[in-house]
Amino acid sequence: MAGAGPQPVDLLVTGIAQLATPRGSTPRTGADLDALQLVDDAAVAVDDGRVVAVGPEAELAPRHAPREVLDAAGGTVVPGFVDAHTHPVFDGTREAEFELRTRGATYVEIAEAGGGILSSVRGVRAASRERLEAGLLQRLDRFLALGTTTVEAKSGYGLTLADEVKCLEAIAAAGARHPVEVVPTFLGAHDFPPEFRDARERYVDLLHDEMLPRVRERGLAEYCDVFTEAHVFDLASSRRLMERARDLGFGVRMHVDQLTALGGAELAAELGAASADHLEFVSDAGIEALARADVVPVLCPLVPLYLRVEREVPARRMVAGGLAPALATDFNPGSCYCQSIPEVLTWAALRLGFTAGEALTAATLNAACSLGRGDRLGSLEPGKDADLVVLDVPDHRFLVYEFGRNPVRAVVKRGRVVHRRGEEAA
Amino acid sequence: MAGAGPQPVDLLVTGIAQLATPRGSTPRTGADLDALQLVDDAAVAVDDGRVVAVGPEAELAPRHAPREVLDAAGGTVVPGFVDAHTHPVFDGTREAEFELRTRGATYVEIAEAGGGILSSVRGVRAASRERLEAGLLQRLDRFLALGTTTVEAKSGYGLTLADEVKCLEAIAAAGARHPVEVVPTFLGAHDFPPEFRDARERYVDLLHDEMLPRVRERGLAEYCDVFTEAHVFDLASSRRLMERARDLGFGVRMHVDQLTALGGAELAAELGAASADHLEFVSDAGIEALARADVVPVLCPLVPLYLRVEREVPARRMVAGGLAPALATDFNPGSCYCQSIPEVLTWAALRLGFTAGEALTAATLNAACSLGRGDRLGSLEPGKDADLVVLDVPDHRFLVYEFGRNPVRAVVKRGRVVHRRGEEAA
Repeated sequence: MAGAGPQPVDLLVTGIAQLATPRGSTPRTGADLDALQLVDDAAVAVDDGRVVAVGPEAELAPRHAPREVLDAAGGTVVPGFVDAHTHPVFDGTREAEFELRTRGATYVEIAEAGGGILSSVRGVRAASRERLEAGLLQRLDRFLALGTTTVEAKSGYGLTLADEVKCLEAIAAAGARHPVEVVPTFLGAHDFPPEFRDARERYVDLLHDEMLPRVRERGLAEYCDVFTEAHVFDLASSRRLMERARDLGFGVRMHVDQLTALGGAELAAELGAASADHLEFVSDAGIEALARADVVPVLCPLVPLYLRVEREVPARRMVAGGLAPALATDFNPGSCYCQSIPEVLTWAALRLGFTAGEALTAATLNAACSLGRGDRLGSLEPGKDADLVVLDVPDHRFLVYEFGRNPVRAVVKRGRVVHRRGEEAA
Repeated sequence: MAGAGPQPVDLLVTGIAQLATPRGSTPRTGADLDALQLVDDAAVAVDDGRVVAVGPEAELAPRHAPREVLDAAGGTVVPGFVDAHTHPVFDGTREAEFELRTRGATYVEIAEAGGGILSSVRGVRAASRERLEAGLLQRLDRFLALGTTTVEAKSGYGLTLADEVKCLEAIAAAGARHPVEVVPTFLGAHDFPPEFRDARERYVDLLHDEMLPRVRERGLAEYCDVFTEAHVFDLASSRRLMERARDLGFGVRMHVDQLTALGGAELAAELGAASADHLEFVSDAGIEALARADVVPVLCPLVPLYLRVEREVPARRMVAGGLAPALATDFNPGSCYCQSIPEVLTWAALRLGFTAGEALTAATLNAACSLGRGDRLGSLEPGKDADLVVLDVPDHRFLVYEFGRNPVRAVVKRGRVVHRRGEEAA
């Protein structure tokens, strides 16, 4: 290239006070979890949807002839956030249930008052696919405005084959129309539907014999998930379903050890799951098993606070034990009505002891790896997808230090500027 | 008026799915704390900066001829938030200290690394009044964008007469130029300045003999505050300073019982303080004393979480004991880098057990009362200032149910539309 003119590129992001990114394509743990690449006064060159170069603007600007320039105006640039655990397909919110919980209502009282997962099931069953898609598109707009460029989206409020398919079709339709990349997960094993309340094993049979193969043959989900907990899917049922899912070609994600120390982490490890999620009650043996099996723990630090449970996931022990954690919102209408990864990062610092670098790595590269996309997403390096967020802060540490507002100024997905904030301060 | 045409007014706010407001001009407690007026499909008529009428749009619209219409577009309208406890005059942020705390550094280690209040003192002393004013104006922009229309602003990072006056002049100058109403508080007794580290009583003398009277004669502060805690201003010093402040005509606010059960609440009650703030360690006797003296407790539910202290203020006991709590951010660069009252409301629900109605009353009417402005601010009723916030949610309960983003669509202060959000979702 020596002697040639500047290289034409689609986009040059300039005016970056600090660029902060993890590096690599595999999950980071230990000291690597905190080993960001930091570049001051940086630029990012983008072509054909991919990162071409990252470095000091003084070096990059003369070498590139961009068709478009995005001025970060002294802000910070980080990789697009990857939210590896959400339940965004629902119709109707649960603010009344939140109020009941504030007044001290128990789980049973809330269920008796018509709340809980089954209230969302009623909403989804009554809604058309088009209506679910429209609601999901609005939520994807909000994810994008908050800097999330890739989101895992679970079904799980249908609990019949037809209603679960309807949710997954809404996910597919919305994902095809929206800049946010959507990774579909089938969560038919979220709870037992009311019509199977007294015949639980028959619902497990239905999932095993019919729902799983049908969803798989229609190509509607990459992953299959189960809520493994004594009061819903016990270890035996979870094993049976997830073995079947794995045999059918799904990747496996599991809700485990969230409310009790059931041993779900050990099962996730044995099954070679892509992720084990929640884990507030995981045992040391569970942590060791996850580490041996290279399962990514997906941590949701907003949820215990939101559920008014004092138990926090033992994140430092996980990192010390060689695990490579991801962070997620767990956005859903019952146990976490929040779509903001910046908010998650602050609470990961406050509740789990994550530094800014660790938190950022967990919500980008490690989350991407948990979704099988570490080769393409989660860091800003040549060859990777140009998914990036411009923040109106001088330094990536403000992602944990500041909270309660949206710091996102602009978002680029696959090289396209897909979101720009208005003029307001927050 | 019967038979006359519609009344000309400056502004009509229409399209309000729900209007939610406390009522009255005095602090609310007990069941009254949760007794919002709720009006569906509402409108608000405003003239000459004041509320003229609140009610169903179908009734109000025909009766008023507005010069301007603000369409709430199906959102919720609430009174402008009143943030009764902030430290917004500083130069330089403390994100490095936040990271040290995440890594487990103690208070002493942080101070030795150059952190803590005294690091902000260095910053303020080195900054010009103009620079402090410019920084404060930016922060007022952000308060406004987050729905705060009145903010109490403390000095307290100067700790010399000249530097404290500089901070209070910056507050006065910014307040005069900005739509947000700023209530100035002198907090020279925030900490001991380094030059008095070994002569603490001399700094108390200086405050008592010189700083308090000079600040008062210049009319730079309505309130005087003290950080009452064993390691800073003990009960005897606090009493001496606050008696002097009261005699000089300041209203009294006090940081009390935040870190230890020193008995600061009892002292605040004895002194007839307008507010007693923090109170995580208040005793039952302290609660009783505050109730007898009608002191408003200003609660800051973000701070224990931010400081990684598990202790929460006994808010339910306070309400049961007849206290009328206010809620505030305590925005400052060390122990709470957050300016969002919506965020405070969620954490008041999650950590303190406030319902949506209680939280909203505490952050509007009760906060206004703690600042001596209950007759004019804190509720949407005829005759009061037209300070209101349009939220992009269907119901006031979303103020607690949802978090981690800014729900504010528009803000009206004294009848003027002073903020409109851009097009983005968050």
